[in-house]
Order: sequence, then C-alpha cells, then structure tokens
Amino acid sequence: MSVKIAVLGAGSWGTVLADLLANNGHEVRLWGNSAETAAEINDHHTNKHYLPDFKVSPKVVATLDLKSTLAGVQAILFVIPTAAMRIVAKQVAPILAETGAKPIIISATKGLEQNTHKRISQIIGDEFPAELAEGLVIFSGPSHAEDVATHDITSLTVASQNIGDAEWVQAIFMNDYFRLYTNDDMVGVELGGALKNVIAIGAGILHGLGYGDNTKAALITRGLAEISRLGIEMGANPLTFMGLSGIGDLIVTSTSVHSRNWRCGNALGQGQKLDDVLANMGQVVEGVGTAKAAHELAQQHHVEMPISESIYRVLYENANVQDEINKLMQRRGRREMDFQR
Amino acid sequence: MSVKIAVLGAGSWGTVLADLLANNGHEVRLWGNSAETAAEINDHHTNKHYLPDFKVSPKVVATLDLKSTLAGVQAILFVIPTAAMRIVAKQVAPILAETGAKPIIISATKGLEQNTHKRISQIIGDEFPAELAEGLVIFSGPSHAEDVATHDITSLTVASQNIGDAEWVQAIFMNDYFRLYTNDDMVGVELGGALKNVIAIGAGILHGLGYGDNTKAALITRGLAEISRLGIEMGANPLTFMGLSGIGDLIVTSTSVHSRNWRCGNALGQGQKLDDVLANMGQVVEGVGTAKAAHELAQQHHVEMPISESIYRVLYENANVQDEINKLMQRRGRREMDFQR
Repeated sequence: MSVKIAVLGAGSWGTVLADLLANNGHEVRLWGNSAETAAEINDHHTNKHYLPDFKVSPKVVATLDLKSTLAGVQAILFVIPTAAMRIVAKQVAPILAETGAKPIIISATKGLEQNTHKRISQIIGDEFPAELAEGLVIFSGPSHAEDVATHDITSLTVASQNIGDAEWVQAIFMNDYFRLYTNDDMVGVELGGALKNVIAIGAGILHGLGYGDNTKAALITRGLAEISRLGIEMGANPLTFMGLSGIGDLIVTSTSVHSRNWRCGNALGQGQKLDDVLANMGQVVEGVGTAKAAHELAQQHHVEMPISESIYRVLYENANVQDEINKLMQRRGRREMDFQR
Repeated sequence: MSVKIAVLGAGSWGTVLADLLANNGHEVRLWGNSAETAAEINDHHTNKHYLPDFKVSPKVVATLDLKSTLAGVQAILFVIPTAAMRIVAKQVAPILAETGAKPIIISATKGLEQNTHKRISQIIGDEFPAELAEGLVIFSGPSHAEDVATHDITSLTVASQNIGDAEWVQAIFMNDYFRLYTNDDMVGVELGGALKNVIAIGAGILHGLGYGDNTKAALITRGLAEISRLGIEMGANPLTFMGLSGIGDLIVTSTSVHSRNWRCGNALGQGQKLDDVLANMGQVVEGVGTAKAAHELAQQHHVEMPISESIYRVLYENANVQDEINKLMQRRGRREMDFQR
C-alpha cells in the first residue's frame, strides 16, 4: 500500500518521520514555514539546523504552500509545537472544508495547551468537524528523533477512538526499525506524553543534587502513580500508563541527557536559578509550563500529586529543593495502589 | 516503638538493613554462617567483603548460633540467596515450633526456586505452619544495597496478604531516607522482583550491540507487558507491575552497570560466549536461571512472552542475538493492551 501524505512541521521529528514514510514507499510532502529549510531539503536533502548529520530521502518534497501540500492527500501528520497546534489547525480546516476532503488526521505532538490545559485531541476537536476529529490518531512513546534518524529500533503507541484508523496508521508506518502498537485510550496516551515532562525535571533535579539510582527509580515510579491518579479522574485507563506512552516515554525522558526537561532539572539541582537555566537553554522547556498545568489539573480534579506539586513549588514559588524532598519523605506511609478503587 | 529483630544473612543487603534497623532504634541480631564476618562486624563494625567503605552501626550484634539469634524476637527478616532459602527455612521452623514463638516473618529475597519455580512465599508456605506463613511480608523494589548504605533515598514495596503485618513492617523500617508502600498482591510483587532480571539481561544485550535509548525503553516497556501477561494468568493484579516491585525495580536493574544481569547481557551483546561471561563474573547471574523459569512458566500458562523467549534462546539454544531481534521486529502489529481482558 502506498499513500499520499502531508507532514506538517519540518523540525527534527517531522523531518525524520517524513524520511521514514518516504523510505516505506509513500509519497511525502513536508510542509514548513521556512523557505530556507525547504530549499535545503529539496536541493541538498539535509536539514542541518535540526539534524546535522542526517541525509533526508530525496523522495521527500519540502513545501511552503499549505493548500497545494494538502491537495489529494489520504493523511495529514501534524508535527507542530503544542503552542502552534491550534494556529495551524485553523489554517488546515478551511482548506479541507473547501474541497470536502476527509484525510486521516494524525498528530505526533505531545503537550497540553497553555491556559486551557486542553489535550491535542481536544484542540483538533475544536477546530475540525466531528467526522474528521473522531478518527484522529495520536503518536506517543519513547522517541528521540536523533535515534530514529539512525534507524535505532523504536516502538510507539498509536491511539485512536477509531481503532481501524490506528491500524491504518500502524500499517503505513511500520518497518524493520519502527514498530507501533495500537491503543484506544486517547486520554491516557495524551496525558502520559505531556505529564512525563514534569517528572523528568524532577529526575534531573535529583541527579543534580547527587542522588543515585534507587532514588531516581522511586521518583519515576511514584511520579507515574500520581499521573495515573490524575489520569483515572480524567477518564484514562490506568494500564495505559504502563505502556509506551507512559512509563516507556518517562524512562527515556527521565534518564537521558538529551532531554531538555532533564537538563533543566539537573541545573536546578546544581543550584542554578530557573531564569538563568531557561535563558541558557534558549529553547522551550515543555515541562515548566506543564508543571503549572499539572498543578491546576490536580486542584481541579481533587487529586493528590505530591511530586508534581513539589516541582511546581520549586519552579513557581522559589521553594528550596532540599526542603521539598524532605517534605516528601516525611509524608505518612501509604498503600502503593492508592489510586485503585 | 522498639522491637527485637533477627536478620538472617550477612551479605550486603542484610548488613545494610540490619544497620538501618539499629539506627531506627531496634535491637538487631545479624546472623550469618561466617565466623570471620561475624567477628569483623562485632569487633570492627565493618563487612568489607561486601561493603568496602561501610561502617555498620555498633548496635548491630552479629551472631552465628541460630537458636539464640531467634530467642525472643518479634520479627525475622530473611536476606538469604534464593537457592538457600528453603535450607535456612527448614532450620528456623523447628526452633520456632519448639518455643511456640510467632514472630512476623519478612523476606527481602527476590527470585524463583530452581526447578519448582516456586515463589519465596510458597517456599515459606511449605516450611512453616499456616499461621506464620500467612502473615509473611515481602520486600521488593529498586534497592541497590550500596545506595541504601549511603542513605540515598530509597522507596520499596512491602507486600503481605495480611495488610496489618505489612503496616507493622512499614512502621519499623521507615525513616527519612527509607520509604515503604504497602501492597496486598503477593503474586505480583514476587513475580516482578524475579522476572525483571531476564529483561535486564536483554537491556544489557541491546547496550552491548550499540542500540540507543528508544530501543531500551521499548524493551523495558514491552518486557513489562509480557511479565504482566504471565502475572495475570498466575493471579497477580496487573497494576502491581506499574509499582516499585515492577517497573521501579526494572528501571534500576536495566539501566545500571552495577547490575550483574545487565553486565552479563552487555558482554553477550558484545559477542562474548555465555560460558566465558559467567566464568568471568564469578557470581550467580540470577536472570540466567530465571530465563529458564520464565520459558517454562510461559509454556505452562500458555502465555506469549516473545522477549523472554528470545533471551532464553540466546542463553540456552545458542541463538544468534541479531536474528532474535529481527524476529521480534518482524512480528505483526499488535494492540498495546493485549493482556487486558
């Protein structure tokens, strides 16, 4: 099966996925807003700003005009930062409405919208008619783009309310280094992918303070327990958090020096000030915004999230890191499965 | 509350737990079978063979005579290798029978008995009368003894059918660097602690072959999924595998160069022969025996465990590692939660 697909977003993850699809025999248009990048991809088959050593398949065609990019495609893959998701969706929806096209919509973006705390599927639901939004397929899981670029084996979850659409996406993406598992729990998959970034900041903080393997494993595990508690209140299946979009992604984000969230936490643990850390980073640290969202969602749903709350206080209320750790350790003994009904 | 407790087994984990209990204000006797070690602990407050830089609390009394060790204790903590568990239990049971003492029995040993594949609680159940065995409390979770020795924050699960006994154990062990969570799922906690070692060998193999973070996170996550599948068939709660005795321990064991299982796998991934690896290791690699147990349990319970089976074939049938990875990647696409009913 060969399909025509538009990939929206020519950052590292979008470029790598476009290349993978082209290698799988599909016809791929990679849309971005930089004329320079598009020319580089089309003329030299590279995207050096994001992937210095990567050779993009010459079959990937970079585009700048959204309307012609979308013409006749069977699927649209969004690989856009969370903050730009609604803006781009607002541009795509009327183009599809005009032609009456009904491609499968896929998103590989992880995160919650600022202020509204909406998940990607809710943003898509706001901007697209129900018949398109209902088949939305979400990609999530442990996926450093740099590692997929070198064909390192990667396994991800593809979630959809319509499992047939998830299976269609599974079929067009899978190959000998890219393996996908379907899941129908959108809420769980999307929350796992977003909230993990808060815990990753915590893992970085512990590393910066010099804590060892036991402590980090405990943080990740108990962090997952509180994500599950919130997820259950929001309608997720707790077992989803055991999967690739939950613990899988959390492991990679919380143990890798490649993770911006981890590096931000590590610098805080070493005693640097948040403003300085963010200024030095020069890129968005998603977990900082997500910590605020987690704090507000925990209040709203009356869920105890002691680790996320501690990280929130360190980030937003200038709380002392060691004081917060001591507070966590002084809580009374608990049952492990206290999120179970 | 101060209690009298016997710790059986003066290896690294037994010594560290004895020290912790003494620091918590309890009266601790640490029993072992080496007169030399006992003298070293009592005279110099060290156990250099296992913990070169560790100072044992002078309040820990090392003993050699089992009968006097057990006299008047409220709890007995087994920290004995799996292979010796039944032998020591057989010595302890008649001593307790003689005096009619009914201490709480605790085990910090992880593993399955060779050939029978019995869990520790089943061995205890075989050797002790029901009224003692029913209150058994199992310790499990991410716990490098070396890190607990330096008071690195550690969180573990304490499981018992009798949650009151688990809470008693929680109360006597907890302090500002040691935090325990109770759980009543013995099967899940014990299986997680044992089967993780097989996956850790797999993580080492991937590292030895040069695979990156995505691949290892996928192995750990999908390894956990198949442990859960087997666990459900054997009566466990799948959510237990999300906890400290499941994913928590799996993270530490699968990412740490301190893990013998990981190191064994790493050497295999680099192309060394199993016999040479084991000879060089000079210590038991628990995961090698557990891989055989997992293989046999999977057959017996008709559960698909593709990753554990691949590792079994590499260890026992001289299968080629890369062939096995290719086979795993060529399996048809699946649902993520295929263990759910």
